Amino acid sequence: MIPERPAEGYFFEDYSVGQVYHHTPPRTINDADAVVYIALTGARHPLNCSTPLARAMGHRGCPLDDLLVFHAAFGKTVADVSYNAIANLGYADVRFLAPVYSGTTLAVQSEVIGLKGNSNGRSGVVYVRSRARDDDGTEVLTWIRWVMVASRAPFVHAAPMVPELPAQVRPDDYKLPPFVEVAALDQRITGSARQWSDFAPGETIDHPGGMTIEESDHMSAARLYQNSARVHFDAFAARALPHGRRLVYGGHVISVCRSLSYDGLENAFGIAAIHGGLHAHPTFAGDTIYCRHVVTAREEIPGRRDIGALRLRMLGLKDARPADVPTPAPGEKHPAIVLDLDYSVLMPRSRS
Amino acid sequence: MIPERPAEGYFFEDYSVGQVYHHTPPRTINDADAVVYIALTGARHPLNCSTPLARAMGHRGCPLDDLLVFHAAFGKTVADVSYNAIANLGYADVRFLAPVYSGTTLAVQSEVIGLKGNSNGRSGVVYVRSRARDDDGTEVLTWIRWVMVASRAPFVHAAPMVPELPAQVRPDDYKLPPFVEVAALDQRITGSARQWSDFAPGETIDHPGGMTIEESDHMSAARLYQNSARVHFDAFAARALPHGRRLVYGGHVISVCRSLSYDGLENAFGIAAIHGGLHAHPTFAGDTIYCRHVVTAREEIPGRRDIGALRLRMLGLKDARPADVPTPAPGEKHPAIVLDLDYSVLMPRSRS
Amino acid sequence: MIPERPAEGYFFEDYSVGQVYHHTPPRTINDADAVVYIALTGARHPLNCSTPLARAMGHRGCPLDDLLVFHAAFGKTVADVSYNAIANLGYADVRFLAPVYSGTTLAVQSEVIGLKGNSNGRSGVVYVRSRARDDDGTEVLTWIRWVMVASRAPFVHAAPMVPELPAQVRPDDYKLPPFVEVAALDQRITGSARQWSDFAPGETIDHPGGMTIEESDHMSAARLYQNSARVHFDAFAARALPHGRRLVYGGHVISVCRSLSYDGLENAFGIAAIHGGLHAHPTFAGDTIYCRHVVTAREEIPGRRDIGALRLRMLGLKDARPADVPTPAPGEKHPAIVLDLDYSVLMPRSRS
Repeated sequence: MIPERPAEGYFFEDYSVGQVYHHTPPRTINDADAVVYIALTGARHPLNCSTPLARAMGHRGCPLDDLLVFHAAFGKTVADVSYNAIANLGYADVRFLAPVYSGTTLAVQSEVIGLKGNSNGRSGVVYVRSRARDDDGTEVLTWIRWVMVASRAPFVHAAPMVPELPAQVRPDDYKLPPFVEVAALDQRITGSARQWSDFAPGETIDHPGGMTIEESDHMSAARLYQNSARVHFDAFAARALPHGRRLVYGGHVISVCRSLSYDGLENAFGIAAIHGGLHAHPTFAGDTIYCRHVVTAREEIPGRRDIGALRLRMLGLKDARPADVPTPAPGEKHPAIVLDLDYSVLMPRSRS
Repeated sequence: MIPERPAEGYFFEDYSVGQVYHHTPPRTINDADAVVYIALTGARHPLNCSTPLARAMGHRGCPLDDLLVFHAAFGKTVADVSYNAIANLGYADVRFLAPVYSGTTLAVQSEVIGLKGNSNGRSGVVYVRSRARDDDGTEVLTWIRWVMVASRAPFVHAAPMVPELPAQVRPDDYKLPPFVEVAALDQRITGSARQWSDFAPGETIDHPGGMTIEESDHMSAARLYQNSARVHFDAFAARALPHGRRLVYGGHVISVCRSLSYDGLENAFGIAAIHGGLHAHPTFAGDTIYCRHVVTAREEIPGRRDIGALRLRMLGLKDARPADVPTPAPGEKHPAIVLDLDYSVLMPRSRS
Repeated sequence: MIPERPAEGYFFEDYSVGQVYHHTPPRTINDADAVVYIALTGARHPLNCSTPLARAMGHRGCPLDDLLVFHAAFGKTVADVSYNAIANLGYADVRFLAPVYSGTTLAVQSEVIGLKGNSNGRSGVVYVRSRARDDDGTEVLTWIRWVMVASRAPFVHAAPMVPELPAQVRPDDYKLPPFVEVAALDQRITGSARQWSDFAPGETIDHPGGMTIEESDHMSAARLYQNSARVHFDAFAARALPHGRRLVYGGHVISVCRSLSYDGLENAFGIAAIHGGLHAHPTFAGDTIYCRHVVTAREEIPGRRDIGALRLRMLGLKDARPADVPTPAPGEKHPAIVLDLDYSVLMPRSRS
C-alpha cells in the first residue's frame, strides 16, 4: 500500500531520504504540444519544427524540444515535491539522455536524496533526483533539484543530509544517438554559418530580442506541463504572499531565453546537459525578458569529430537590456538578472 | 428552403416550439484540441492524456475530455440559440452517451422544446434539447438548456409552454461502453487509491488549488469551441452592458473546477451525466476560481460490479477559499458561489 | 558563402535590388497549427475545420486556412526583411496558388525588387517579392510587400528604384485546383444559402461580432508564425517608441476580421488573392476589432461555371461599430479604420 498523498500536499516533515515517488498522471506528449510550445515561447530551432531537417539529421520525425520534455517531466514532480515549495532553489546534473518523439508517454519518478531543515524550524530544503522514462523504459532525462518546502508545524530536525552535487556533467556522459548527422544543418536552414569552432571561450552574445511575459502565457505554459504549483495560478491567495502576485514558472523563463537565443546561437540544435543553475530573482507578468550568453568552454565529445558541445552561461535579464548590465562574476548576483544557468549545447563542429 | 439566419441572430420572437436547427459549421475535433484544452484549463485526468492508460482501459486511444466534447457541441448551438442571450439559465438531462475520439466530426442540432415570455415583454426563456452525433450518426451527447433571450421588439406572448425537466438522469440511463476496464486505474497512475466505495454521501471535498482566469484564457477557450457569443469577446460593446465587462463563458468555469478537482477526485475518470446546474453569478477575468465537491449519493450502475457513479454537487467559488464558505442548502445562493452543478462521475468501485 | 546576418538584423543600407534571401528556419505546419489558429482567431470557415467537408470538396484533408499559411510564410521573412521595420506599408499581388495541407514544410525566399530612401536620410522603403514553396517545390503563395526600414546611419541614397505594382491580380491568374467541388457547401454546413450570385457590387455587409485583442493573443499568434519582429513582443523597449506600447501584428487583425466575417460571408470558402491593402492605423492590445465588407465586383473565373470570386473591400475598425462609421472613398482614411484590404474570395456561384 502506498500511503495516500495529503489533500494539501506534502510538507517538509513528510519527506525522508530514500523515499521514492511515482508521479502522476502519466502524459502522452505529441506534435500538438510542440506547436503550443512554439506559440507560448516563440521557439524557432529548426530541428524541433522542420520534419525534413529532422529526417535529414537521422531522426524519424521532429524530436520534441529538450526544454518541452524537461518541463513536462518537471511538471509531473510538482504535486509530490514542490506543491508547498517556497522557492525552487537550484538544479544540478540535468542530463538529456535520448530524443523524445511525438507520442511518447513519460513516466517520472523522484527519490529524496537529501534533507536539511532550516534553523527557523519552519521550512527546509528537500533534494530530489528525478528520472523520466519513455514507453520502452529508457531513461530520457534525469536531474537533481532542490527546493525550500514549508513545514506543517515548527520542528526540531535531525542532522542534515546534504547530497554531494556534481559541479558539472562530464562530456563523456553526454548521450548523443550514434545515428545523428549534422551535415544538413546548413546556413540556409538555420540562418547562420557560425558553428562550434567559431565560438571562443569568453565570448559574449547579447541576443537582440526581448519578450514580455503575460499572465496567460506563463499559466498556459505551466498548464500545458500539468505543473500544478499554486504560486503560478492563484492571484487571490498570492495577495497574502510576500510578492503579492503570481510567480512565473522559472522554466518558462529558461524557455524564453532559449527562444531569444536563436538569434546568435542558430546552430545550437540541442541541449546536452544543464550543469547547474538558479532562478536568482522571481519573474512576474509584465516583466520583459532579455538574454545574454557567455561562452565558458568548448567541449569535445568523445567519439564525435562532427559535433562539439559549447558550455554556456545563460543570463536571463528582466527590464534591462543586456548592453546595460555587466556580467557578474560566477556566483554573484545582479538585481536585473533573474536566471543564471550553466549548460552545454550541441553544435556542428565545422562549417558544412 | 431553410430560412436564412438574420445577420444579427435570432431574437425571442423568432423561435417556435418544434423548430429544429442544424448548427454550423461542423467541426473535426482532434488530439490538438485535447492539448490546447489542457493548456487552457490545466486538465490532468489521465484517461484523457495518457494513451497507454486509455488502451489499458479498452479504448482505441485517448477519448476526448467529456467537457471538451460538451463545449465543442455547445459552441455550435450558440449562433442559433444564444447569440442574443442575456443569460444562460440552466442545464438539465445532460447525458454523455459514447466516447468521442480524435478525428470525430460533431454534427449538432437543437429543437425548441419550450418558450416562456417574460412579463416585461422584452425577453423570454427559450428551452432547447440539443443532440450531438459523431460521423456514424451515433448520438454522443444530448442535453437540455434554457436561456433568456432578448426580443427584437416588445411583444405580447402566447401561453407559455414550459417543458417538464427531469430532476435527474437515472443510473439505468448511464451509458458505459461494455469494453471499458478499470483495473488499470491504479494509484500509480491516478495518484490516489480512493475509489467509489471510499466516498460517503455527505462528504465534503475542498480542493486545494485555485485558478485565476485571464481574458485571453476564456476567450481562447470559447474560440477553440467556436462559441461566438458576443458577451465573451467584445469589451467595447460590453461597456454599455450592466456589468461593463466581458463575461467568462460559464463552461470554462466548469472546466476549471473539474481540473482543480483532480486533487481529491483523482479516480473520477469520466462524467456520466449532468443532472442540472446553473451559473449562479457571472465570472469575469481576474476572478480566482476555487472548487468544493459534496458527495450526494453513491449510485450503482446496472450490470457493472466494477464501476460505480458518484453523484456530486460541484460548487465553483470566486475569490473565496472553500474553507471560508458554508455550503448553502440546495437551491440557495451564496454571493461567492458562481457555479452549482449536480452531476455524476464514474469511478472504479473497489481498490485494484 | 552567404554573408552572415548581422546580430541586430539588416538596416536600409544593407539591401540592394536583386538580392535574394532564403529565410530560416523551415517550419512544418500541421493540424495542431490549425487548432491553435482557431483558438487565437475564432476562425469558423468549415473547409478548414471539417474533414468530411474537405473530402467532399475533393481535398485529401482539411487544407490549412489561407491566412494561416500566409502568416507562417510571412513570419519567415521578418528576420531578413522587417526586423528593423518602422512600419509595414502595404501588400500587393498576393496570390494563393495551391492548397497547403497538414505536414507541409514551407520554404520561403524573398528578392529585393525596389528601394527608395526617405528624404530624411534615416530610413527608406524596401520592396520585396516573396515566394513560399511546399515540399515538392510547388509555389503555394507569392506576394509583394513594402516596409519602411530604419537605416543604421544617415545616408545619401542613390536614385530610387520603385517597382511597378499591379493594381490587382487578374481572375485569369486565380489558381483553383481542378478537383475542387462545391456541391457539398450546403447551407446545413455553412449556415447560409447566400452564394456568389446573391451578392451585388456596392453591397455593404456589417458583421455583427466584435473581438477585443489581448497581449497574449497577438503575441501567441506571432510566435506561432515564428514572426520575431521586436515591436510585437518587447514592452520594455516599446516605452521608448512613439506609441509606447507593443504593436499588434497587422496580420492578426486581418485574421480577426476574416473570422468575424463568417457571419455574413459563410460561403467564402477560400481566398483567391489579395490585390492590395494597408494597415491604416496601428492596433494595440485592448482594442476591439469590428469588420465591414463592401462588395466591389463579382468576378468570373475562366473555366469554372460552379465557382466565382467576389472582390471585397475589407475594413477593419477599432473601438467603433461599423454602423457608426461611413465607408471612406478608396484611398481615404478614417481614424477608426485600421485595416483597408482589397481582396477576392471564392464562392459557389449558385445555390446547391
